[in-house]
Amino acid sequence: MKKINTSPISGMQELLPSTQAIFNKAKNYLSETFSNHGFQNIETPIIDRTEILFAKAGGDTEKQIYRVIKTNETADDADQALRFDHTVPLARYVVEHESNLTFPFRVSQIGRNFRGERPQKGRFRELYQCDIDVIGRNKLPIAYDAEVIATLYRALTTNPAFVLPEVRMRISNRKILSGFLAEFNLNNLSDQIFNIIDHAEKVSPDATKKALEDLKIGSEYVNKVLDFIAIRDSRTTAIAKLRSLDISNQQFQEGVAELDKILELLEKQGLHKNAIADMLIVRGLDYYTGTVFEFFLPKYPQVGSICGGGRYENLASNFTDQVFPGVGGSIGLSRLFYILNENKFLKEQNKTPIDVAIIPISEDDYEYAFSVAEKMRKNGQNVDIVLTDKKLGDKLTYASKIANSACIIGETERQSGKIQLKDFSTGKTANLTL
Amino acid sequence: MKKINTSPISGMQELLPSTQAIFNKAKNYLSETFSNHGFQNIETPIIDRTEILFAKAGGDTEKQIYRVIKTNETADDADQALRFDHTVPLARYVVEHESNLTFPFRVSQIGRNFRGERPQKGRFRELYQCDIDVIGRNKLPIAYDAEVIATLYRALTTNPAFVLPEVRMRISNRKILSGFLAEFNLNNLSDQIFNIIDHAEKVSPDATKKALEDLKIGSEYVNKVLDFIAIRDSRTTAIAKLRSLDISNQQFQEGVAELDKILELLEKQGLHKNAIADMLIVRGLDYYTGTVFEFFLPKYPQVGSICGGGRYENLASNFTDQVFPGVGGSIGLSRLFYILNENKFLKEQNKTPIDVAIIPISEDDYEYAFSVAEKMRKNGQNVDIVLTDKKLGDKLTYASKIANSACIIGETERQSGKIQLKDFSTGKTANLTL
Repeated sequence: MKKINTSPISGMQELLPSTQAIFNKAKNYLSETFSNHGFQNIETPIIDRTEILFAKAGGDTEKQIYRVIKTNETADDADQALRFDHTVPLARYVVEHESNLTFPFRVSQIGRNFRGERPQKGRFRELYQCDIDVIGRNKLPIAYDAEVIATLYRALTTNPAFVLPEVRMRISNRKILSGFLAEFNLNNLSDQIFNIIDHAEKVSPDATKKALEDLKIGSEYVNKVLDFIAIRDSRTTAIAKLRSLDISNQQFQEGVAELDKILELLEKQGLHKNAIADMLIVRGLDYYTGTVFEFFLPKYPQVGSICGGGRYENLASNFTDQVFPGVGGSIGLSRLFYILNENKFLKEQNKTPIDVAIIPISEDDYEYAFSVAEKMRKNGQNVDIVLTDKKLGDKLTYASKIANSACIIGETERQSGKIQLKDFSTGKTANLTL
Repeated sequence: MKKINTSPISGMQELLPSTQAIFNKAKNYLSETFSNHGFQNIETPIIDRTEILFAKAGGDTEKQIYRVIKTNETADDADQALRFDHTVPLARYVVEHESNLTFPFRVSQIGRNFRGERPQKGRFRELYQCDIDVIGRNKLPIAYDAEVIATLYRALTTNPAFVLPEVRMRISNRKILSGFLAEFNLNNLSDQIFNIIDHAEKVSPDATKKALEDLKIGSEYVNKVLDFIAIRDSRTTAIAKLRSLDISNQQFQEGVAELDKILELLEKQGLHKNAIADMLIVRGLDYYTGTVFEFFLPKYPQVGSICGGGRYENLASNFTDQVFPGVGGSIGLSRLFYILNENKFLKEQNKTPIDVAIIPISEDDYEYAFSVAEKMRKNGQNVDIVLTDKKLGDKLTYASKIANSACIIGETERQSGKIQLKDFSTGKTANLTL
């Protein structure tokens, strides 16, 4: 017969069942942590109007959006495409359902987004993103910025699916850099300077210096910027260094005060050890207007950012005149999971998600086997019953592949009610009490 | 500003947070039940090659498939579309990963599929489907058919997200009807007769009779078929009636024996009260070759089938010469949830997913409030902290909207460590011990 290519499309993440189980565990824990921090989960449709999706997208993103060809039955609808992030559909959702929501609205979204990027190692075209946001109406206190950062940090660092090495929260505020540039009348170059800072970690210090020099701002200002972006310290030191720059610009002062407040609130939750003020963090996306943050693994610099987000002064400016300030962050789970797997940070790699395989010797043993299975399942165990008509040895081989332990049910077990559980990893057998 | 339509595209299900929480609870319980019955979860990409997806689709399905326009970066890839069910991607997955899978492969899939249907009440274009399948290699014992049916039944009837009225499992076997028709040399009309039976419940008995008469098979055979499809009884009665038809055709005999075995295995698990043999069940899809089943709510006939599935002799015949027999079933969760909501079968409609809102009176109370929140979260509660700078009364109003209870943290509470929890549904206040 004609051979069909059965591999998934390039750039798609498709996992084997035992790895999928760890992925699901990681995802479920993120979901639980978001819930127990008061974030309410919502799901938006994957297909939305291009008019909505293109309202924010631009440049590269726009080129990567998957558009959808309408079917016979949907021909009367507007142009459609697949969502590429959770923020744009959230803006639509908040405007659409405003009268049924309570603000500040703590919201979480976990699901696949779609970007037709050129496939690279660890970059996926269908990517799970796990987002939380707090949306205010007209105003939103800065304390929520700390709340978002703390929630994401806990969701990652206490996750039972993996052992993460030290995670560092690197936090800044765009008002600080904007105010800094305004103080020295460099605002007209702010796009270029933001861009140089955003790329500084991907190039050598010399290259950054040269890029700044190329702006023809004079060596005094080049050095000022270089000194500024070298500020990367814990709260007290960083805030002191920023204040010692003696910049009177109001935006700068506001940014420093906000950053100080966030670090203070993290301190009050015992999270300051891994939180630093870091002027290298600017975040590429231009809709951030205040706090910006990224999480890194200091011992694995090549991994890059594993989580990021920030504050935006107006979530839905493309859809309404109402002002919805917000703060949010996102974990790119598909990429993170790929990295964790590559670096052997996943737990229970050698286990299967099935706890026990019950092996009835003959059909006469089925009824008793079913009752044993039901009891184990009620105790929260994942139980397979082997219903093939193969020899006992073959059934055991099957069991050893799909489950972590097995028990055989034959006439002896039925009569005595005594069942033995064999653990495949230790090879030991124990009596089972149900 | 220009007003943009912010409603989701027609035919998409978009829920408010409190309803989404119940949906998620229902879905998570299905997932857990599948896991504890030994089904291993997998996820396939939503976008796949049209060559794969169109291998099975045909007729209406093909017209409803959403095709994807390639982006700059994906222009070199094959034609792509969105999956419309879980079965076709599963076939691809099994062929692709065969050497890494253990057979019989118990597999579950929970996710959204896409069909560009004309929107109707309770029919969605993005639809959550929750599938389980057992895939064998070359052969698969009939006992797995009972296992699939029992698992789906338990996942629905013990689901904590809703109170379902009595669920009836209606089971048949396509070999019985095929054998029956062969016995009377009616095989050449089998497509038409399958179709008439499939639609019999949507039309009057007279219309069914007339449709059979229109086939010009003679009144004797019309009556034979009508008597046959009236068989709808519990195991002993139904099997006796089928045997009393005195049909020697081997396929018929095989089908009856298989159906008897499945009903026996359900009996052994105490599920026979709600399981019947029912000759009206044929299932429209032509790839079923043996067992076919559907679940109904007898007290709500207008709801129709809430779950269905069956046995197929060769899952991946379009992709490989290897033979993978399987049995599976699917719960259309989006539609089911819509129906349950309409009929007021959902639990906890008046509750929010947030258990407690903690209200610090001033910023001085934040630190203590954070520590209280952490303790509650570790106890599994969903906790919001109200960080707005509003008056206490306004904070309480907010809390009463988003949470089921609240506690105020002020100087008194900080000093004494005594905290009171107010339950909004009862209005009662209780001392809290952490």
